[in-house]
Amino acid sequence: MLLNKRPPLSYLFNKIKLELIYVATITLIVYFLTTRFEHLLPEMPLTIPTFIGTAISVILSFKLSQSYDRWWEARKIWGGIVNDSRNFVLQLQSFLGAGNEQTIKQMALRQIAWCYCLGRSLRGLEPVDSIGKYLSHADLRSLEGHTNKPLGILQQNTADLRQLREEGQLDVFSHVQLNNTMVNFTNWMGMAERIKSTVFPVTYRLFLHTIIYVFIIALSISLRNVAGYFEIPLLLIIASFFFLLERTATHLQDPFSNKPTDTAMTAIATTIEINIKQLLKETDVPNPHPANEFYLM
Amino acid sequence: MLLNKRPPLSYLFNKIKLELIYVATITLIVYFLTTRFEHLLPEMPLTIPTFIGTAISVILSFKLSQSYDRWWEARKIWGGIVNDSRNFVLQLQSFLGAGNEQTIKQMALRQIAWCYCLGRSLRGLEPVDSIGKYLSHADLRSLEGHTNKPLGILQQNTADLRQLREEGQLDVFSHVQLNNTMVNFTNWMGMAERIKSTVFPVTYRLFLHTIIYVFIIALSISLRNVAGYFEIPLLLIIASFFFLLERTATHLQDPFSNKPTDTAMTAIATTIEINIKQLLKETDVPNPHPANEFYLM
Amino acid sequence: MLLNKRPPLSYLFNKIKLELIYVATITLIVYFLTTRFEHLLPEMPLTIPTFIGTAISVILSFKLSQSYDRWWEARKIWGGIVNDSRNFVLQLQSFLGAGNEQTIKQMALRQIAWCYCLGRSLRGLEPVDSIGKYLSHADLRSLEGHTNKPLGILQQNTADLRQLREEGQLDVFSHVQLNNTMVNFTNWMGMAERIKSTVFPVTYRLFLHTIIYVFIIALSISLRNVAGYFEIPLLLIIASFFFLLERTATHLQDPFSNKPTDTAMTAIATTIEINIKQLLKETDVPNPHPANEFYLM
Amino acid sequence: MLLNKRPPLSYLFNKIKLELIYVATITLIVYFLTTRFEHLLPEMPLTIPTFIGTAISVILSFKLSQSYDRWWEARKIWGGIVNDSRNFVLQLQSFLGAGNEQTIKQMALRQIAWCYCLGRSLRGLEPVDSIGKYLSHADLRSLEGHTNKPLGILQQNTADLRQLREEGQLDVFSHVQLNNTMVNFTNWMGMAERIKSTVFPVTYRLFLHTIIYVFIIALSISLRNVAGYFEIPLLLIIASFFFLLERTATHLQDPFSNKPTDTAMTAIATTIEINIKQLLKETDVPNPHPANEFYLM
Amino acid sequence: MLLNKRPPLSYLFNKIKLELIYVATITLIVYFLTTRFEHLLPEMPLTIPTFIGTAISVILSFKLSQSYDRWWEARKIWGGIVNDSRNFVLQLQSFLGAGNEQTIKQMALRQIAWCYCLGRSLRGLEPVDSIGKYLSHADLRSLEGHTNKPLGILQQNTADLRQLREEGQLDVFSHVQLNNTMVNFTNWMGMAERIKSTVFPVTYRLFLHTIIYVFIIALSISLRNVAGYFEIPLLLIIASFFFLLERTATHLQDPFSNKPTDTAMTAIATTIEINIKQLLKETDVPNPHPANEFYLM
Repeated sequence: MLLNKRPPLSYLFNKIKLELIYVATITLIVYFLTTRFEHLLPEMPLTIPTFIGTAISVILSFKLSQSYDRWWEARKIWGGIVNDSRNFVLQLQSFLGAGNEQTIKQMALRQIAWCYCLGRSLRGLEPVDSIGKYLSHADLRSLEGHTNKPLGILQQNTADLRQLREEGQLDVFSHVQLNNTMVNFTNWMGMAERIKSTVFPVTYRLFLHTIIYVFIIALSISLRNVAGYFEIPLLLIIASFFFLLERTATHLQDPFSNKPTDTAMTAIATTIEINIKQLLKETDVPNPHPANEFYLM
Repeated sequence: MLLNKRPPLSYLFNKIKLELIYVATITLIVYFLTTRFEHLLPEMPLTIPTFIGTAISVILSFKLSQSYDRWWEARKIWGGIVNDSRNFVLQLQSFLGAGNEQTIKQMALRQIAWCYCLGRSLRGLEPVDSIGKYLSHADLRSLEGHTNKPLGILQQNTADLRQLREEGQLDVFSHVQLNNTMVNFTNWMGMAERIKSTVFPVTYRLFLHTIIYVFIIALSISLRNVAGYFEIPLLLIIASFFFLLERTATHLQDPFSNKPTDTAMTAIATTIEINIKQLLKETDVPNPHPANEFYLM
Repeated sequence: MLLNKRPPLSYLFNKIKLELIYVATITLIVYFLTTRFEHLLPEMPLTIPTFIGTAISVILSFKLSQSYDRWWEARKIWGGIVNDSRNFVLQLQSFLGAGNEQTIKQMALRQIAWCYCLGRSLRGLEPVDSIGKYLSHADLRSLEGHTNKPLGILQQNTADLRQLREEGQLDVFSHVQLNNTMVNFTNWMGMAERIKSTVFPVTYRLFLHTIIYVFIIALSISLRNVAGYFEIPLLLIIASFFFLLERTATHLQDPFSNKPTDTAMTAIATTIEINIKQLLKETDVPNPHPANEFYLM
Repeated sequence: MLLNKRPPLSYLFNKIKLELIYVATITLIVYFLTTRFEHLLPEMPLTIPTFIGTAISVILSFKLSQSYDRWWEARKIWGGIVNDSRNFVLQLQSFLGAGNEQTIKQMALRQIAWCYCLGRSLRGLEPVDSIGKYLSHADLRSLEGHTNKPLGILQQNTADLRQLREEGQLDVFSHVQLNNTMVNFTNWMGMAERIKSTVFPVTYRLFLHTIIYVFIIALSISLRNVAGYFEIPLLLIIASFFFLLERTATHLQDPFSNKPTDTAMTAIATTIEINIKQLLKETDVPNPHPANEFYLM
Repeated sequence: MLLNKRPPLSYLFNKIKLELIYVATITLIVYFLTTRFEHLLPEMPLTIPTFIGTAISVILSFKLSQSYDRWWEARKIWGGIVNDSRNFVLQLQSFLGAGNEQTIKQMALRQIAWCYCLGRSLRGLEPVDSIGKYLSHADLRSLEGHTNKPLGILQQNTADLRQLREEGQLDVFSHVQLNNTMVNFTNWMGMAERIKSTVFPVTYRLFLHTIIYVFIIALSISLRNVAGYFEIPLLLIIASFFFLLERTATHLQDPFSNKPTDTAMTAIATTIEINIKQLLKETDVPNPHPANEFYLM
């Protein structure tokens, strides 16, 4: 997540440097052609490029809106994970009688592990690396049989709930209620995976990208009578604006891609760890996940 | 689902070749008329076609937005199917005591069959073809009495749950909780069928298609003073842009039509099969469904 | 529901013939005035009507979007009715023990009757006409005391559930779970009635309709220098476009009005009858409801 | 709720008469200035006001859309109240054994009272006035301690449910299920209060209102060359259009303000009374609430 | 929350004074350049800035729409807190037998404390300051171990529910139903924290802000032929409009920032206190939270 401060210009520039080079080249070519072979290029009324530009801004706005919805849904999913992680521990404490503190702690730590593991898995990182301290050796070994590691962790907590019920520590109604929370975890996980694995309609983006170039070419032909030292920066600024917005949309579309614009999953998982450990009355809680220069992961 | 790579130009061209031929013909006719009978065609101020073009881009954006919502809803439905298939197996393992492993496996395989069967049925393919290996002979025979095959499979799992309860393996609360998951399956199935069977308002699309031609005709009359070698490609590019966006909208509207732009139902069902089999601690799991050249089915 | 084929031109023309006659009259009057009393009409810059036209297309798009949402909500409601009708029968079969087949059949037939009755009631047709074969005489008689016939049918199934519980055929938890499905039926019915009985904001539509005429008048004054044989068809085409889109919006707003653009309630209710009868293992199922020339009711 | 008929012109005119007087004054002043002191007012290109007008139409459309959502949410809330009132009576009849008819009737009448009371309370009318015939004296007296009268009525039904359970007339599961319906009533009430008490962002509306005047001034300066007898009606029509749409938005924003554009709460509450009384097999049901000239309250 | 009255002009002016100074400076510089070095600045067709302005108004509208959704979601969350606080007390009264009045009161007061504490915590104020009178000393001490104070309060009520069940005052089904309400509290809290902690996409806002300046520069160059005493106010008005709308969007985005545009959390919490105390039949209720000059906190 980008923080509420101006990101470094180099960061922004890097996002669209390729496009800007193209735009500068196009403008220079058109400028050269119009200077040397003035009769070669026909008259292009300015209404044509501005109409195309208006069409682009409308379609781009809708695309931004759909990308924003994806980004916000991703954030809601992780908000739901925060809530249900808290609910899970509170429910265990509410439904299990005295003497189960150790089991509660074990299941709560497994829930912390699940959060970190899901975050890393969505980012395409090795998911089991950093969760060794929350899981037992048996748990870690049994995860090996799973392609989907977070699903494996959920199965372990599901099995523990069943055992608690068989041992008579958990009545059937509380079991069903806790199962509702487990169902939520499966759902949040699947929702995040859906966003991760569903490519935003490719052709939509492709056409938009292409038409921005058409717009730039048409505009540079229209503006050939304007002095060159003025035309080129103007075109670069308008082009940057469209390309940067389009890039912003693309980043919002993919909120789990290990980039500064990601959902801040590590920070959220750390918050969950702090909350859960304080609910367990532990005092050895980690510090909040630190922010980078201009973003939080 | 189109993958995150540039689809081949031939694929895109095929989508709108008919429209492009019409546009080229229109432009040539107008060019011919203006060259031969210059007095025949009246003056058309450029403001008229650009105003029409702006109106088209606004209405097209809304249509894209509605089509996108349908497409995303289809993807959410299959995401829900992934989640509830996992939930179903985890719940069976949590609510049924030891000794029911064989019944759990049979019901889980039936759930896998349901996923494949629903996918094929939505695509208009023979739904029972590929699911023989997950179902018993009795199951397959009893499906014959159903027009809606996936509904028939759900009835079989419903009947098994009832029998488990009558045999005392399942208490009434767990039965109700499992029934909630079964209700979800019926709902997901019905939601997908709704999208499949509801035609997007026809007149909406018809008027939009017609007005794009009106726009092209008006624009080609307006631009008759522009040199022909420049006018024709410009018109073709703008027309392609509108027609391709309109075609993108149409593809998003119908996400279950056995085309490259479909929801990747076979790939999702294969993921479900892998997840379920690993939850059952089986080792003989299939590979993920392979992608085609530029899309995943 | 209009089918995915070109509706006959006469159908489309009938929707807006009044408006087109008005537009033609306006254009002719302006043409006559400008020819005879050229000094009478002031200069109208073309920017004025095109600005109004752009404003109309923006506001019309939003109206189309809101109307589409109403139409899609109506379709979702009937999709929910399909799902819960299937759920209801599956739940009865799951929760009631052997020996209750006859009661299940009676309640399932009542559910079919409810679907047909609700559809006819929403369309403003006599609701009890076609459901005699699904209900007993006592049921039909008791409906007479109800203004809202579908609500009366729901009360009958509610009473049967209570009796099953009093007879010990149904335990209390299954009763509550079945009650959830009954609650859904009341909700779907009320949601459809809400759409039926809520008039889309009248002033919104009125202003939009009026401003389209203002636009036509302004445009016809602006275009008076364009040759008449060209101006009149151009105005008629642009006006048709706006009026047809506006009419499409109006049809989408009222999806239960016994018109070809209706939600296909009879077809859906027939699908429900087929599904339910096959779940009851009956072989005498009706055929799917046939489509009319270009629509399905 | 405005009915589906043309509201009287006087009604519409009254909504914006102040604004129209302002607009006429502005136009006359500009007309006077341009006639007398032609050199005083600079040239204003027509592109400036039409650009402002386009911006207004875009922002106004979004505002209309947000206001529409508020209005539709208000209608959904009252639709939900209809549904849950029916559900409540059906559930009482389903979960309470024979001999409780009197208690059911008393609670059902209290529910009717709650609907009328909530409607009047949202409209800022004395809430207890018209509900004396549905409540006992004890009930009415106990309402005196409540600022929020509808909440007080809900507490009475909640207390009755508890007593039924303590008397053994209601088992614990049915109590919980009925409590879900009671929770819905609290939620619907709170949702309506939220819409009532939340002011639509004031600055948003203020800026939009101001910019319409800027647009009118700029447009009247631009059009000074157009003959006055033509300019003034044109400005008045365009201004009316914007102001009426803005007023429509404002009315949709506040659907509980005792105006003709209100949600038809009295009519809905009367429908609930009819439905509930017929479910109780009563024959003395009121007539549907009559419509006024062009609206229904 | 801003009240439904005109906020003081000084308040509005303060929001954008920096931007207006920049705009005035830009205009003066351009005016100076064009007067002195007329040949230095090239011709800038007015179509360019109006096209940019249209693009800004489209993108700004979408941003306003997304900000509005955040603001409305924040208000819905606090509406949900009102509803569930009422539900919580009604449920305690419905599910706990006679003799538990003291426990009910203690838990209800804790719920009031939770509302105030959450509101202050979201606003970045010391959260425990004002809630001493609702909590016991033991409660306050146990809060010290929690970074997240509201979560700590929820844990206390969760623990009390468990104790009631262990003492046999609460049956297991009612416990589960009350737990659903407790789960809602955790969810509402987490949803508010999500809005508080998620920065609206920074680059989106940054580009929009920058392009407004580009628009102003381009427009001031285009308008150089217009008399200066007219051009500068026109530019300032149009710039104010865009900057004020952009500022409105920014305020709506952050509804928990201790500003006049905040969600009125203190007022809502006071309403909850009044409602809960009247449900407890207490007579010593506070007055509604008073409004400030033009806003309510």
